[in-house]
Formats: sequence, C-alpha cells, structure tokens
Amino acid sequence: MSSQKAWAVVAGVGPGTGASVARRFAQKYSVALLARNPANYDPVVAEINAAGGKAIGISTDVSDGKSVKNAFEQLKKELGGATLAAAIYNVGGGFIRKPFLELTEEEFEVGWAANGRGAFHFSQAALPLLLERVNASPEYPPTLIFTSATAAMKGSAHCASFATGKFALRALAQSLAREFGPKGIHVAHAIIDGVIDIERTKAYKFDHPDAKIKPEAIADAYWYLHTQPRTCFTNELDIRPYIEKW
Amino acid sequence: MSSQKAWAVVAGVGPGTGASVARRFAQKYSVALLARNPANYDPVVAEINAAGGKAIGISTDVSDGKSVKNAFEQLKKELGGATLAAAIYNVGGGFIRKPFLELTEEEFEVGWAANGRGAFHFSQAALPLLLERVNASPEYPPTLIFTSATAAMKGSAHCASFATGKFALRALAQSLAREFGPKGIHVAHAIIDGVIDIERTKAYKFDHPDAKIKPEAIADAYWYLHTQPRTCFTNELDIRPYIEKW
Amino acid sequence: MSSQKAWAVVAGVGPGTGASVARRFAQKYSVALLARNPANYDPVVAEINAAGGKAIGISTDVSDGKSVKNAFEQLKKELGGATLAAAIYNVGGGFIRKPFLELTEEEFEVGWAANGRGAFHFSQAALPLLLERVNASPEYPPTLIFTSATAAMKGSAHCASFATGKFALRALAQSLAREFGPKGIHVAHAIIDGVIDIERTKAYKFDHPDAKIKPEAIADAYWYLHTQPRTCFTNELDIRPYIEKW
Amino acid sequence: MSSQKAWAVVAGVGPGTGASVARRFAQKYSVALLARNPANYDPVVAEINAAGGKAIGISTDVSDGKSVKNAFEQLKKELGGATLAAAIYNVGGGFIRKPFLELTEEEFEVGWAANGRGAFHFSQAALPLLLERVNASPEYPPTLIFTSATAAMKGSAHCASFATGKFALRALAQSLAREFGPKGIHVAHAIIDGVIDIERTKAYKFDHPDAKIKPEAIADAYWYLHTQPRTCFTNELDIRPYIEKW
Repeated sequence: MSSQKAWAVVAGVGPGTGASVARRFAQKYSVALLARNPANYDPVVAEINAAGGKAIGISTDVSDGKSVKNAFEQLKKELGGATLAAAIYNVGGGFIRKPFLELTEEEFEVGWAANGRGAFHFSQAALPLLLERVNASPEYPPTLIFTSATAAMKGSAHCASFATGKFALRALAQSLAREFGPKGIHVAHAIIDGVIDIERTKAYKFDHPDAKIKPEAIADAYWYLHTQPRTCFTNELDIRPYIEKW
Repeated sequence: MSSQKAWAVVAGVGPGTGASVARRFAQKYSVALLARNPANYDPVVAEINAAGGKAIGISTDVSDGKSVKNAFEQLKKELGGATLAAAIYNVGGGFIRKPFLELTEEEFEVGWAANGRGAFHFSQAALPLLLERVNASPEYPPTLIFTSATAAMKGSAHCASFATGKFALRALAQSLAREFGPKGIHVAHAIIDGVIDIERTKAYKFDHPDAKIKPEAIADAYWYLHTQPRTCFTNELDIRPYIEKW
Repeated sequence: MSSQKAWAVVAGVGPGTGASVARRFAQKYSVALLARNPANYDPVVAEINAAGGKAIGISTDVSDGKSVKNAFEQLKKELGGATLAAAIYNVGGGFIRKPFLELTEEEFEVGWAANGRGAFHFSQAALPLLLERVNASPEYPPTLIFTSATAAMKGSAHCASFATGKFALRALAQSLAREFGPKGIHVAHAIIDGVIDIERTKAYKFDHPDAKIKPEAIADAYWYLHTQPRTCFTNELDIRPYIEKW
Repeated sequence: MSSQKAWAVVAGVGPGTGASVARRFAQKYSVALLARNPANYDPVVAEINAAGGKAIGISTDVSDGKSVKNAFEQLKKELGGATLAAAIYNVGGGFIRKPFLELTEEEFEVGWAANGRGAFHFSQAALPLLLERVNASPEYPPTLIFTSATAAMKGSAHCASFATGKFALRALAQSLAREFGPKGIHVAHAIIDGVIDIERTKAYKFDHPDAKIKPEAIADAYWYLHTQPRTCFTNELDIRPYIEKW
C-alpha cells in the first residue's frame, strides 16, 4: 500500500449527513467533498483541514455526466499514488410533495435526476477507482454507499417524484452489489427513515427527546459498513429513531 | 351513461401482451392502441375492426410529453360523449443486459424513459379522463394498469437500466394507487415473471410444456382486475408460468 | 373425466369469506365445508343444497391432525370417482391484540395453531387429492388458496400472535407454490387488507361508502385465481377497499 | 449505575455465531450462555473466564417456557444489583429439507418451536430486565437481537418447516421493535445469508476464498447494533459473503 493516505469521496455535502460522513471518514482518509454549491462544503472542508485532516471540495452537478467526469479527473490528480477507499452517494435531490396531476415533467424528473442519473454517473466514476483499490489489499473492502429513504420501499400518495427516484436508487444499489460484490467491493443501500437533526429541521418539534436522527450516528453506521470484512457484507439496513412509526 | 361504447387505451402494442389486451378489452370497449411504430398496431387494429369491434391506432412516443398529449387530444375527439374505462400501460422499453461500466448514459436512461417518464406522461393524460368516468357511475371502476416485471422487485447484476426503470414504475403505481384509489380509480401493478409466448421467443425452448406465459392469459388477468369492484381492489399481483423458478 | 362433479373444500366457514367462497365454487363444484362448529356451516350447506347445488359440512378442528385426517377420509368417501378441484384455507384464527408482556403462551400460540399448524394439516390432506386431479386433465389447474392478511407483511405492535401466524402462513404458501407449481398445482396467497363486510362488523362505521370488503368480491377473486391456466399463475395478490390506507 | 458489570445473555450457543457473540459481548459485559446441552457452552464459558472475563452457562430448553423461566431466575440471582444490557437469541433450530408430503407434524413444528415459541419465551423473560436497564441510563440502549436467515424472506420448496419458523421470527422481531423501540429498547432482526465458517461446515468447498461468513464478523455486527444510539436504530440488516448469490 502507498504510504499516502487513501481517499474517500462524498457526493451531496450539506450541513447534515454529508458533512458528518465527511468528518467521520476524514479520521482515517483524505476526503473529497462534492456539491453543486461550494458554500455547502466550504465550511466542512475548512473545519477538517483545520483539525489536521485533509479535505478538498469540488463543485459538481451529479446529474451532469461531464461535471462528474471533471470532478473525478480532479480527484485522480489529488490521489497521486493513493487509492479510493470509499465513495458515499448522499445526494438528496429535491423532495417534492404534490398532487400527481399538478406535477410538471420537470418536477417529476427531479427524483430521477438526483437518485437515478446522478447515482449512475457517480458510480461509473467511482467504481473503477474502487476496483483498483481491491488489488491494493486494503484493510477494509472498498465501499460504495447510497443514502436512501423510506420512499425507496413505499410509494406514497403525492410523492411520485421522490419515490420513483429512491426506488430506482435501490434497484441500482442491488444491481451493483450483485455485480461488484464478487469483485470485492462492498455496495450498501441505507434506508434513512425519519427526520435528520439539522439546522433546517430545528422547527420540527416532537413529544419525545431524540426523535430526530443524529447525522453523526448515520456517519458511524456508514463507517461500520465500511469496516465489514468481505465475509460479512451488509447490503441493506434501515436507520430510524426509536420513536419513529414504521 | 352515454349510449356510445366507452373506450380503453393501451400503450405499448406489439404482437404480444399489448395486442392480447387490446383484443380482450375490445370485447366490451372501443380501443385506442398506442405505439411508436404503426406497424406494431396496424394488424391488431384491422383485426379488431374486421371482427366487428372498434379500434384505432395512434402513433405515439410515450417518452415525449408532447407526443402523448397529441395522442390523447386525438383520443378525446374520438370519445365524443363517451368516457375512458381503462388505460393500460404496457411499454416494455428496451431490455439492456450489460456490465455496468460498459453502459452509456443513453443506455442507462432507456429503462427510465420507458418506465418512469413514459408512464408519467401516460398517467397524466389518462387520469383526468378516468376521473371523469368515475362520475358516470360505470359498471366497473375506471382502471389504470401497469405491465411490470420481476425486475421491479430485484435489481440483478448487469440489469441496472431495466431494474431502475421497473422499480420506478412500481413506485409510480403505488403512489397513484394511494392517491387515486380513494377517488374511485383502480390502479394496479402487474409483475409478469417469465418469458411471454410470442413469435420473437419461439426459439426459447424449455423442458416443460406451457413454460411461456400466454399473452391471452395476461389479458384475462387485466380484464379481471378491471372488473373488481371498489370494495376489492388488487393493487399488485404476480403472474408466472407454473414451472418458473422464483 | 368422471361424469360426477368435481369437489372443492373450504376450511374456515363462517358468515363471511368462507360462506361466499363456498357459494361461488358451488356454482361449478360440489363443496365440502369445514369448521369446528357446525353452526358455522349449517346455514350455507342448507342454502347451497336448497339452490340445487351440493354441499356437505364436516366438523373439523384444523389444528388437530387427526381431526383433519378424519374430515378428509369422509370427504374421500363422498368423492367416489370424482376429484378435488380446489382447496381453500380460510381459517382466521383468533385475532389477539395485547401488549407483548401480557400475552400467555396459549394466546401467543393461537396465531400459529390456526395459520401454521392448521394450514399444514389442511395442505397435507388436500395436496394428494389435488395431485390426483392434475392427471385427470381438468379444465382448470387444481388450486390451493390461503386467505391471509396484511399481518403477513408487517408485524405491528401488540399483534405478535397474529403476525407470527400470518407470516408463517405466507412462508408455507410460498414453499408449496414453489414445490407444487411445477407439478401443476396452483398455490396462491391472498392478502386481505381491510375490514370485511359481515354482520359482526356492522358497527364499524366509515366516512366513505363501500369501505368494507364485500366477501362476494373475495370469492370472485378466488374463483378467478382458480381459472388461471398454468402458463399464468398468480401466487400472491392483495385485496383492499379503494379507501384503505396502506 | 451499579459498579458491577452489566450482563448480556445469549441463547443458542454452539461453536459458531453464539460463541463468537458471547466472546464479543464478554469484552464489556458478564455473559450468560444458554443452550440445551452444556457441552455446547462449557468450552466458551471456560475460555471467557480464563481470559479474565465472566461467563456462566445455564442449561435451557428455549421451547419450554418453564425451562426459560428457571434460566432467567438463575440469571437474576447472578445479576445482583447489575442490569441486563443485551439479549441475543441465536437459536437455529433444526434445519429440515424434505418434500412437503413426507414431513411429519413433529418435523414441521421444529421451525416454530425454535423460532416462534422459543423466541417468545426468551423475549418475555428478557424484556422486563432490558426495560429495567432503560431507567439506569446505560451507555448503550438495551438491545434484543434475533439471528435469522434468508428463509425469513423467502419460502423455498422443501423448506416449509424452517421458513415458517424464520418468517414467524421476523414477524416477532418487527412487532417487538415497534412496541419496545419507543420504550428505549433496540430490537433487531439479522438476516444471515450464507454458510457460516465453523467446524461443521469445513467440508463445504467454494471456488472463492472467504466464501463463508466468519462468526466473529457477525459478532462485530451485533456489537455495532448494540452501540447504536436511540436516534439511530437499525431494525433489520442482511449479512452475506461477497460472493453469495442473492
């Protein structure tokens, strides 16, 4: 193995899960953070670097193949002799709740753009790098994790855009797990079921304490997934607060 | 109710399921058959009209919103005072089996175009007409049926394009069933699991007789779904030959 | 085929689904109705016979292997040269809703006794007769249908007894479908999701009309399943009123 | 919290998963190991005690309510002022693969006895102790984990006994998670999909290395589940070797 630290790449970094995942993986790896708007990753990049870790941000539109290609070209230059240990796809996409007959085509396509097309581009760019790492006999199997939602399991009324996207993401995760698992890559689909505890959700009040999912706990779950040996891959797990109805 | 016969519309008419469904629904309704290539519906249209039924064909590209809108404008003119009793979305889309890293974006999008975007356009055009019929106190609840596949339940290796499309279609079907069921429309997702017995599959040989699904039997299933009263809607069923492994 | 009418057997006959299924299958077959308490089947038996059909009742405790064996011995005598065309297992078992720590072992076992053990005995007795009919080239493939519930798909709080029973019933249905499908027997699992419209549920009021499932419509669904050719077996379907939340 | 170490209890301890789970939890807790035959837990008990941990074995027949009650009475005496931090139900039950019509009632009931009835008795005895610990503000939420299998998701031909048992176990796990999650107890269902790497499976040869699941890796997964905070409970995960077909 190279003496350089390996890398992790996280797409979809805002103030919630993405940032926590970046912080967690930065404890061991250099991290590249992808988001359309640099304002979303700049604070985390600065924070990780200030704390002695290594982080870079790359402005990327995951629904645009060329933009993703460019991002990974830049990442490859950063890698030098190092390899990619983990790739986390955490792009939420806009959640649209609307009566079906009021949806425009553009609104309907939002779910697919983020969860289908975006995950496709990200996976196509990340998998060759993860495959390279398999040969480097890494401590942990190279890992590709997709952040998903309950909408991947159930299509609710007025949620056609989001549900079609998340169902598609789950299909992609399964297909990749079955193709790349035997090649030594761990592909996992994480069903996040509940409200995440971030600035934006501060106003949501619950009767119980700890009713919102701590993004740090999701990050711990992803890190645990990453450390699973290849004799013991988890391909799907759910995550929800103890008081969540499901 | 109008003295005119009600209509059914079938999108995705080739020599297999679509044609059989058209024939079956033509026993009670006038039928409009949609396919990109008129060569796909012309023989069935002629056959139904020759047999004393009423059928028209409309060349339509379901993945193009404008084309679907035009098709339904034409259909509405044909309706006159009649209503739409059933809409069947039977568009297969191209099935692509390929290692993931060899998929182009165009190939990956094939599944979505047919099963996500196409089903969206078709549903948006058909649902307002089906809602109108609810008020006409029809014999059977207006029905929207989606032809799906095992790939809606399981993402297999090398099938990312098809599986993402079919998972998305299932999400859409569930979302619409939950939104439009309470409005009196029956939405169903049919998982066709197996090889369909048509000209193109003649070469597929099995050790057992009746190993391929008869399209007429699928048509009977769809007709049965259509006749279910609103106290007893089936939202999902599977269909497979007796010898199919599942 | 024998000139005698073939038979259908229905276990779990009360005033609801079981009686409706019996009436429906009695339109074509002689029917044997099984229930612990003759008071449950006597009125239906009388009604069918009065209407020119043929029905018998056999007092049976399905959770007791010997009792089921005796019932089928009696049935075999009635069959004479005729064969068994359909077997419907419609035993509800007691529905117990209770905090888990208050459940006695006896109460917990109620779900299994009805849905696991009972379905086992019934299937073991019915399948050999259904297999015999396969060889008689019947009009419709011999059919074994299990009445199930949403509790087969989701284990709710306070429903451990019922849910373990219904999950087990679904497992049994799948296992039998995969073993006996290739032998020509159609095994199906019907998920009834909603309140059934019977005397006992008269007090349940809903805001919408037709909010309860008509048992006649379930019977029609079972009859449709029975008529499916072996190229087109449905192994699982759900049934719910149009306004049901799911 | 008491100065005494808290306890974990593991039911179903043989040379595989149970022993590894006991070793893992013994790193932090005193452990009580339950099995019918002391020969199954004696070596692990000795090993843990020799290594400076604390372990006891209690001969228990989980399918017998009285035997489970006795075991937990003994455990409670051992607890003294300490509390129960985790309970792991790892009872395999006999796996029976047989044509359905050759199954005796006794053989069919084997799956239920181990996975339904046994899990019921174990849960009823463990949950009151886990509830007590919730009030003790423990580091990790008290945890109840069930070892399950692919047979909990799919009923295969010739596996009616095992599949009905594992489906029932999954139903129980879901029901308990929904009832006791809001009370602060973490209930999880672990789908172990593959051959476990133990003495008994040495003869099973695969083309690939690491084709069998290491029991230590399952133990790590269970430990990770135990450490999840209540904002982030995983209620179900699958575990399989990278080369497993699924």
